[in-house]
Amino acid sequence: MVITFLSDFGLQDDFVGTCHGVMKRLAPEVEIIDITHGIPPQHVLQGALVLCNTLPYMPEGVHLAVVDPGVGGHRRPLALRTGDGRLLVGPDNGLLMPAADALGGVEEAHELANPDYALDTVSRTFHGRDLFSPAAAHLALGVALKELGPPVDSQALVHLDVPEPEVGQNRIRAVVLYVDHFGNVELNLRREHLEHAAVLPGVTVELEIALDRYYAVAARTFADARPGDIILYEDAYGNVAIAISGGSAAAMFGVGAGQEVRIHLRTP
Amino acid sequence: MVITFLSDFGLQDDFVGTCHGVMKRLAPEVEIIDITHGIPPQHVLQGALVLCNTLPYMPEGVHLAVVDPGVGGHRRPLALRTGDGRLLVGPDNGLLMPAADALGGVEEAHELANPDYALDTVSRTFHGRDLFSPAAAHLALGVALKELGPPVDSQALVHLDVPEPEVGQNRIRAVVLYVDHFGNVELNLRREHLEHAAVLPGVTVELEIALDRYYAVAARTFADARPGDIILYEDAYGNVAIAISGGSAAAMFGVGAGQEVRIHLRTP
Amino acid sequence: MVITFLSDFGLQDDFVGTCHGVMKRLAPEVEIIDITHGIPPQHVLQGALVLCNTLPYMPEGVHLAVVDPGVGGHRRPLALRTGDGRLLVGPDNGLLMPAADALGGVEEAHELANPDYALDTVSRTFHGRDLFSPAAAHLALGVALKELGPPVDSQALVHLDVPEPEVGQNRIRAVVLYVDHFGNVELNLRREHLEHAAVLPGVTVELEIALDRYYAVAARTFADARPGDIILYEDAYGNVAIAISGGSAAAMFGVGAGQEVRIHLRTP
Repeated sequence: MVITFLSDFGLQDDFVGTCHGVMKRLAPEVEIIDITHGIPPQHVLQGALVLCNTLPYMPEGVHLAVVDPGVGGHRRPLALRTGDGRLLVGPDNGLLMPAADALGGVEEAHELANPDYALDTVSRTFHGRDLFSPAAAHLALGVALKELGPPVDSQALVHLDVPEPEVGQNRIRAVVLYVDHFGNVELNLRREHLEHAAVLPGVTVELEIALDRYYAVAARTFADARPGDIILYEDAYGNVAIAISGGSAAAMFGVGAGQEVRIHLRTP
Repeated sequence: MVITFLSDFGLQDDFVGTCHGVMKRLAPEVEIIDITHGIPPQHVLQGALVLCNTLPYMPEGVHLAVVDPGVGGHRRPLALRTGDGRLLVGPDNGLLMPAADALGGVEEAHELANPDYALDTVSRTFHGRDLFSPAAAHLALGVALKELGPPVDSQALVHLDVPEPEVGQNRIRAVVLYVDHFGNVELNLRREHLEHAAVLPGVTVELEIALDRYYAVAARTFADARPGDIILYEDAYGNVAIAISGGSAAAMFGVGAGQEVRIHLRTP
Repeated sequence: MVITFLSDFGLQDDFVGTCHGVMKRLAPEVEIIDITHGIPPQHVLQGALVLCNTLPYMPEGVHLAVVDPGVGGHRRPLALRTGDGRLLVGPDNGLLMPAADALGGVEEAHELANPDYALDTVSRTFHGRDLFSPAAAHLALGVALKELGPPVDSQALVHLDVPEPEVGQNRIRAVVLYVDHFGNVELNLRREHLEHAAVLPGVTVELEIALDRYYAVAARTFADARPGDIILYEDAYGNVAIAISGGSAAAMFGVGAGQEVRIHLRTP
């Protein structure tokens, strides 16, 4: 059985390793795949989007996700089954929902309330270790979802607002979702939005970021551009992103998650 | 069989991966759990404290730890068995001792001196790869501790000075042990110290850090505080820590390991 | 069966985790060892050298390496068998060649062209996920190399220029290959070069880096030096490196990969 694991814990501390230890003590046969632990601290939306993008590439199993600014407060700890049979474990703060919606919707959700499936002592600040990891391990061992606690109406689960772009006649208003390790800037745009605005490969547009303007060219791949060119391309998960061939777009623009990017279309 | 692995190697280079390779060549069936490799370079005390905090959450097995500023010098390479039957491997510089003391004490310790259980060539700067990883793998395969080299009197092992807080009438002098990925600042204080000074949840204190003073409130969890509040809380390993709800306390105070923090109690 | 995995993907994003997922979906029994994912973005030469240094310490199997600035362009995706029977998978940009040359040379090379052994949709920017990981997983499952695509003449493969040092009468001109997590500075020098110039342990030399000069002493290990001493030593892979005992040489000199270092020999 496989447990995948995504969090904002980083790898500097022992948080991830300790959760691995907890899961392997309970379920020695389980295999853990770390999707990433590099979600920026407490960025629930980015965690939710990365989980949604990556689960289709993961073996089916238990999918643990912890980005949990509300730990110790009133947010519910949760386990749920999706329409296609995957089991997701994490806080009820919206983190699991884009992935669940994409994988057949929430079929059954339960609050983690049964102390038999948590560590003996549950701290107030590290539910990843004390509550979520044990629940994931027990699910991987075959414990039924309903054993973990009372059912929760799927309508009552917290959903996130995923920002939508505005696609107008002459321009598109988009928002930076996140910036990756290579400095590529992911927008809340899909290829359809560009196509709808007739931004096809080869077309040049103007980007407005903060108070600056830049020319960028729509491209299929980095190899279509010369070093230093700013390109607009569909990334490997189907999002539109901005890159600089051979460089870091994020460093050049000084942008981060949440910032607005306007794309001005040049009238023909 | 499980080997847990903690070091200050970081994940930028191949050091950790190479040790994994060495262990898996010798013991293909062994499973390796990385506790963390983010101990700040050569901070033996922090490595020792993290090892001590986390081993209770790990499956019992062989526990490899390498934070080793004295590599290539006169410090002994070591393997030992604790009172509760765990096997610890690492340098004799104090790194293993807080964990060993917490797990039943040192029952038997041996110097790694038998070349049959090291790589053919032992470099002068990477004993993690050439000496400690092979020893851990052979122990995991069932080689007896005493095969690895001559016994060492447990009284002769190097111990660390763990700094103790001073708890006075009106103030507590503590020291920063380390700073985590979320910017939380761990002190060398336990809840008992706060309770002894009547700092219970809800009580406000003054923190003196460098030349600045800040108000902080004792809290059970982040969820008890408003965004921006400075809180003093018991972390998930039982240490007292300073956090800022929704922010990084370490960045605000500009503190790092070793710095003094004074907690002034407000007389009632 | 073991797959080792080296890349410049970093661990901040999901790139590495997603490739693990792809491989484990196809080959659930395979074991993946991460050599490192900390190669600086798109530094093919550093990736090639680290792969070459580390493969001898890895179990024999499939060895996946992705540092791929030309993704989506004309560079060939490749799988090859070395003289000693290892299978290497990665882009045909020189990344695999130093390792292949050190492991018995290229016996057989094939272009990854058979869509049966790739994901259904191959993106233009993430061949690690869509092309290389599936190929590695299928090879680990026992698929024959020649099934993956047409043979490539090993003479036609791209080779890297590894910079050679100039060893003169009074000085050596070397180049920084890379800087590690501890701030040690690796040069394109082997011990033989120093010995040829009579720089034996205990000898003092002058280093010229940018416009500054420093004294350094040849040493066998960090333990031979006093804190703050600059030492020149043979690192654990046989390269000559510059270190500062108890500090970061890279931070002191402000150097990075590619920079020239001149070693002036003091005439006796």
